Order: sequence, then C-alpha cells, then structure tokens
Amino acid sequence: MRNFKMTLQYEGSRYQGWQKQENTDNTIQGKLETLLLRMTGEGIEVQGSGRTDAGVHALGQVANFHADTEMSAQEIMKYMNDYLPEDIAVISLKEVSERFHSRLNARGKTYCYRVLNTQIPHVFDRRYVHVVNRELDIDAMKRAAEYLVGTHDFKAFTSNKRGRKSTVRTIESIRIEKAQSLSMGLMGAQDEVRFWYSGNGFLYHMVRIMTGTLLEVGMHKRRPEEIAEVLASRCRENAGELVPAKGLTLMEVRY
Amino acid sequence: MRNFKMTLQYEGSRYQGWQKQENTDNTIQGKLETLLLRMTGEGIEVQGSGRTDAGVHALGQVANFHADTEMSAQEIMKYMNDYLPEDIAVISLKEVSERFHSRLNARGKTYCYRVLNTQIPHVFDRRYVHVVNRELDIDAMKRAAEYLVGTHDFKAFTSNKRGRKSTVRTIESIRIEKAQSLSMGLMGAQDEVRFWYSGNGFLYHMVRIMTGTLLEVGMHKRRPEEIAEVLASRCRENAGELVPAKGLTLMEVRY
Repeated sequence: MRNFKMTLQYEGSRYQGWQKQENTDNTIQGKLETLLLRMTGEGIEVQGSGRTDAGVHALGQVANFHADTEMSAQEIMKYMNDYLPEDIAVISLKEVSERFHSRLNARGKTYCYRVLNTQIPHVFDRRYVHVVNRELDIDAMKRAAEYLVGTHDFKAFTSNKRGRKSTVRTIESIRIEKAQSLSMGLMGAQDEVRFWYSGNGFLYHMVRIMTGTLLEVGMHKRRPEEIAEVLASRCRENAGELVPAKGLTLMEVRY
Repeated sequence: MRNFKMTLQYEGSRYQGWQKQENTDNTIQGKLETLLLRMTGEGIEVQGSGRTDAGVHALGQVANFHADTEMSAQEIMKYMNDYLPEDIAVISLKEVSERFHSRLNARGKTYCYRVLNTQIPHVFDRRYVHVVNRELDIDAMKRAAEYLVGTHDFKAFTSNKRGRKSTVRTIESIRIEKAQSLSMGLMGAQDEVRFWYSGNGFLYHMVRIMTGTLLEVGMHKRRPEEIAEVLASRCRENAGELVPAKGLTLMEVRY
C-alpha cells in the first residue's frame, strides 16, 4: 500500500469539525473519505494530525492515507481539488514512507487566534475573527503569557473532564502582536490582536481557554501573576472563558 | 437638512450591485435606504460616489445623504452597523457641509483587481479573486499598461454601447504587482497578481475589460504595443475579455 501525506486548508464555518461522526457526514474527515472512496472504490481512512473543533479553520492541517492506486500524487491532488467543496482544498500531496503517521509523527503545531479589537464591523474578516470591543492591555497579556510557556500540567485549560491521559504539555512560544486587519488595510489601523501558540500538542479547547484567560488579563479583570495559580489549581473553573471557534486557525504542523 | 458622508465596505457576492432597482431590494443602495427610512421615518436618498456592479466589492466606497435628524453622527453609525447585514459595514460617518456630493465632488478613485495565478484552489480568498492558471508575463503586462495611462478615449474599453456621453477619461497610474495571497501566506508563494488602477473616473466595465486585455498580453496572446491600436480603434471588439466581477474591489474615493 502506498502512503500519501497531504496539507489541507479549510474554512471551518459550516462543518462540524474534523472528525467523522456516525450521524452526519458534515465533517472534514468525512468529506475527504467519501471522496477517496469514490476515487478508489475502496474504504480509505484519512488520518489527521489531530482534530479541529466545529468552526475552527486550517491553513496547514496535515493528514495521511494509505491507498492501493496507480494514480500519481499529482493526479490524486487534482482529482480531490476538482471534487472537494470550495471551502476545503488540498494544497500539497506527496507519497511518503509507509511508516509516516500524521498524528504520531507530529513534533509540534502552531495555532493563531485572531481578535478584532474595534467597534467597527469588519466585512471581509468576519468569519475568521472574534470581536472584542473593550480596550486590551497588550503588555499585561504578554506578561501573563510567559507563565504559560514551558512544560506544565494544563488540566485547568481543557474542557475534557473524564480524561485519564496526561494533561502535561509543552508550549514552546506564545506571541501576541498587534496587526492590521484586511478590512482596515487601507486605513492603516492596527485594530487586530493575534495570539500565536506553538507547542508539542494541545488539549481539547486548550488554545481557546488560554486565549479567553489572556483576554481577561488584557481587560484588567485578572492580574498576569494569577496565571501561575490557575495552572497550579488544575481546575477548569479557575481559568477564563472559552472564546468562539471562528477566531481559531491551525496554521502549521511540524514533523 | 444635515448632510452626512459615510465610508462603506461590502462584500458584493450576494448583491445585485450598488444601484437600487425597482424589481429587487437586493442592492447595497437599497439596503441602506431601507434602513435609513426605518431610522428616520422618512424616505432618504443615499448618493454613492458611483455604481459598483453586481458581485464587485468595496473597501472604501463613499456615499452621502441628507437627513433631518437629531441623532449624532456616532449614533447614526452605530444604528446602521447594528442593523445592516454582516456583509455591509459603515466604517466612518461624519457630518459635512451641505454642498458635499459624493459623486460630483469625487476627484479620483482607486480599484484593485486580484488574480490568483495558481492551480491550487484558495479557500480563504475564493470570493475575492479571479483564478488564472496560465503563466503570466508580468513585464509584458506592465509595458502594455503604460499605453493606458494618461488621458485617452476609452470607448474600446466599455460595455456601454448607447452612451452619447464622453468616453474620455484620465488614468493616473496602473500598478501591477506580485503579491502573497492570504491562503498561501505560510508557504510564502507569490501566487497572486494585483492590478491597481487610479484615475479620475471609470466607464462601465472599464476596469474589468482593461484587466482582461492586460491578462491576454500576460499570456502572450497579444503584444503590449497592440494596446495603442485598441485604444485608437474605439471599438469594444478589439479589446480583451470582461473578467469576472468577484476579483474587483473599489479601494478608495478621493476628494
């Protein structure tokens, strides 16, 4: 069996997340597997680097699948892009060693969470950003973020309650930057705040809860130093709000 | 009567253009006038700097309207943004002198036409770009564009056949640049070509026909020098194809 690695982009708005579900085919994985079944006549499992939740976007999701086909990688990519819905695209596809596994071999991931910090509605970015009207203290958020960087037990920063698995993860870096949104490009306003997270792996809802917590620091509802206590408590209730999915984009998976 | 000047952004995808029509209210001007009627209880005419066609977008359309209201400019803007559909936004609104007229006082406009020059579908830009798969000779297009800059009779570059009005216009500049599209930002590919047009006014379909003609030069279907002959012919059939509306955005109106 040949093994193919592909990089995917999708706008998550109208999907129920990455992972296929029994009661709906409205998932990214579901769309891909349905298409590969049609292409090869065989049931093929598409293995993603990880799940993305309903409404979360991807600029660089990675997945792999095994197939017994004579088609070239280029032909497969063209076939997929011809038949995928316009909000999902395969931006690269190549044959890789049989042992490559998109989830098990992933060394790290980068996510970006986009916050529009303005009272003016943004037409062109509206599907990809979370709007916060209140003023944000960027320096305070940067100081708070330093407590999250490193290897910690992030149990307070996940919505997963049952899990017996380890909740220890390593965050390599958090970058918080002012940016110019597309809509306001002409006006030159730095009205967007982007939160970039790189790490070896992220728990369920972890990026969105970290962002919600940092935003509370930015609004002076919390002090930056409190983050250390939240981590130590290992209790979800001590962390901040879960911010909406639409602001989140999976940017890159590293191998 | 007070006079208000506003700057508007809209995604044109689901509208039948700027100008209100008798048989549909699905136009930008129609949506704005319906809302102002609701706000003031009076029929108010919104005067745009010019029409944009069905499917054309705007990052900086300008319009004005007269109203007998006690509301502040800020209150009007908030009201409008609260009730406008999410693909239309008022990004600035202020009271101006009674004599200001968004169309008659406009000194110039800038449009941008975006072409994706790649075989890879782009999820996040798909509503705002026209896709061209063939290789484009940027230098040839730049040489061709020089023939269009200046004051010329652009009769060959408009779809309007009846018009008795002058078809002479002045193009101040045409800039053609390679750019990095949003989707490929991570990959670093310069896979987009942007055509920027600034001028004192543009005829019906003029920007889209100029772009279509320049693209034919870029594909080596025409020589750059032919543009002079096309202009001189004053005949629509000698110019290139009308490219799709979705690639076009009105960027700015200057006063």
